[in-house]
Amino acid sequence: MSGRILVTGGAGCIGSELAGKLVARGECVTVLDNLSSGKREHIEELLGAPGFRFVEGDLLDRGAVDEAVAGVNLVYHLAANPDVKFIPGDPTDRDLKQNMIGTYVLLESMRLHGLRRLAFASTSAVYGISQVLPIPESAPLRPISLYGATKAGCEAMISAYHHLFAMDCWIFRFANIVGARVRARGKTVISDFIEKLRLDPSRLEILGDGNQAKSYLLASECVDAMLHATAAAPTGLHVFNLGCTDGLSVRRIADLVALRMGVAGVEYRFTGGEGGWPGDVPRFVLDTRAINDLGWKAGRTSEQAVRHAIEAILST
Amino acid sequence: MSGRILVTGGAGCIGSELAGKLVARGECVTVLDNLSSGKREHIEELLGAPGFRFVEGDLLDRGAVDEAVAGVNLVYHLAANPDVKFIPGDPTDRDLKQNMIGTYVLLESMRLHGLRRLAFASTSAVYGISQVLPIPESAPLRPISLYGATKAGCEAMISAYHHLFAMDCWIFRFANIVGARVRARGKTVISDFIEKLRLDPSRLEILGDGNQAKSYLLASECVDAMLHATAAAPTGLHVFNLGCTDGLSVRRIADLVALRMGVAGVEYRFTGGEGGWPGDVPRFVLDTRAINDLGWKAGRTSEQAVRHAIEAILST
Repeated sequence: MSGRILVTGGAGCIGSELAGKLVARGECVTVLDNLSSGKREHIEELLGAPGFRFVEGDLLDRGAVDEAVAGVNLVYHLAANPDVKFIPGDPTDRDLKQNMIGTYVLLESMRLHGLRRLAFASTSAVYGISQVLPIPESAPLRPISLYGATKAGCEAMISAYHHLFAMDCWIFRFANIVGARVRARGKTVISDFIEKLRLDPSRLEILGDGNQAKSYLLASECVDAMLHATAAAPTGLHVFNLGCTDGLSVRRIADLVALRMGVAGVEYRFTGGEGGWPGDVPRFVLDTRAINDLGWKAGRTSEQAVRHAIEAILST
Repeated sequence: MSGRILVTGGAGCIGSELAGKLVARGECVTVLDNLSSGKREHIEELLGAPGFRFVEGDLLDRGAVDEAVAGVNLVYHLAANPDVKFIPGDPTDRDLKQNMIGTYVLLESMRLHGLRRLAFASTSAVYGISQVLPIPESAPLRPISLYGATKAGCEAMISAYHHLFAMDCWIFRFANIVGARVRARGKTVISDFIEKLRLDPSRLEILGDGNQAKSYLLASECVDAMLHATAAAPTGLHVFNLGCTDGLSVRRIADLVALRMGVAGVEYRFTGGEGGWPGDVPRFVLDTRAINDLGWKAGRTSEQAVRHAIEAILST
């Protein structure tokens, strides 16, 4: 892979890891980010790198997208509303706009610029509550969140663009991604627990019944998998689950956070219910044989990934 | 089923059949249609029926949608861009707006009006070129048209609304629907052939290689299937293929049209290629066991349905 590469959402937790690795490889990298949840500090050290370019702008601003896309020959599209949670009272068009319409604007700009290679950050939330575990990529998509629904819509649109406009596309369905970099908004379970225990180390409110069990993957490993797949399967339309095959319970994450923070005797208070919030998929593990067969495998279990992320967040 | 029923796209080929049957059953029916491809003449005879209401308006006009939704307790959502074809040079946002965003506006209006029952006209185009034939509802969705992609996006959004807002939803993936009523725009293969042979009975241009083979279903049977399913499976989220299990080739349809029009020795000219146009799925038959198990089965084969439609179009 060589040439100029665009990373949308490149100031986010995963996007900035990706942009950093690409710059370290000597690639010319453009980052497009509106800094709504990404942070300038995540790309601060890249700003002076040769060939690095930062376009502060929104996917819904066609002018900004055109500016970012010009001269590029591969796009890693990670910009999106990062928060799966829908809290009653939230607007219901946030994901439609930032995921679905934003992705359409990008696809359209790519098409008109003759840019034919797109790697897309999708999500395991597209599956909803699967009847089959671990979930293979061929499972039906029955999303239960607006986030998952619009990501599924993006996937469908990308499938059509692949066919109609001869684009090579990679769709990556992420497990829960954790890492050192915490988002400006849209808390993950780890940063939520750390924040709460800092305020009051005697007790911890845990969303749901604590038995939710999901696959976790480090942002740095997620980035390695995307780089691997785009190089190893260079043409066509590909869909890959990215994660590890074991699940980790939310209660266990609480234990790990409390242990690392050195607080003992924390009283857990569960909000109750199977899922943590409306649209939460309480239990999932991904079948990752497709990406494994391509030569990539997660180096850490879910628990190892979460331990690593806790350590990284608390030591910065 | 009783109460007030809304049919979006109710002046279209399928929608007006549905509205007519509901009125004949004594239901109070509202039709919402922007008459972009539906025709006023399709609902002319319904306008005086007791409880019938016509709202001329667009799905993207929230005021019109709110007006149509008020007082309703079941929606059959058929309004959409009706044309699967994408011709290079066409706008690429037509399906995004009229299918995806229009469906979102409707879902949102329903949610805010406390309306919890939605039957949705989807399409077999969501599957794209399936590896498995006949195609079961559980097959992966890899649409190759913008039409199919945005219908898949609508399905995903409906799945999320079902879960988040306790809606009962029926998703119907239609085979190719044929019938007496011809659209104001967006030709079907039958009306295309009839038009061409009327202009010049000596030759007929056929898109593709003529070997495309698809499932056809009469609009009236499609309507019966929807009415059956919404009554027989009253709650939950359901996905049904609607069609018959045999396929019919485009070349055979040309023969049937020429035969019925009494023109002999027509020279067929094929534009070539597997599909008729970019985004055309050249061959498909649907696995209809789910709707069969619910007690409904198409009464006609594809050829019988097409013969019936040819007869109906030519005799009006």
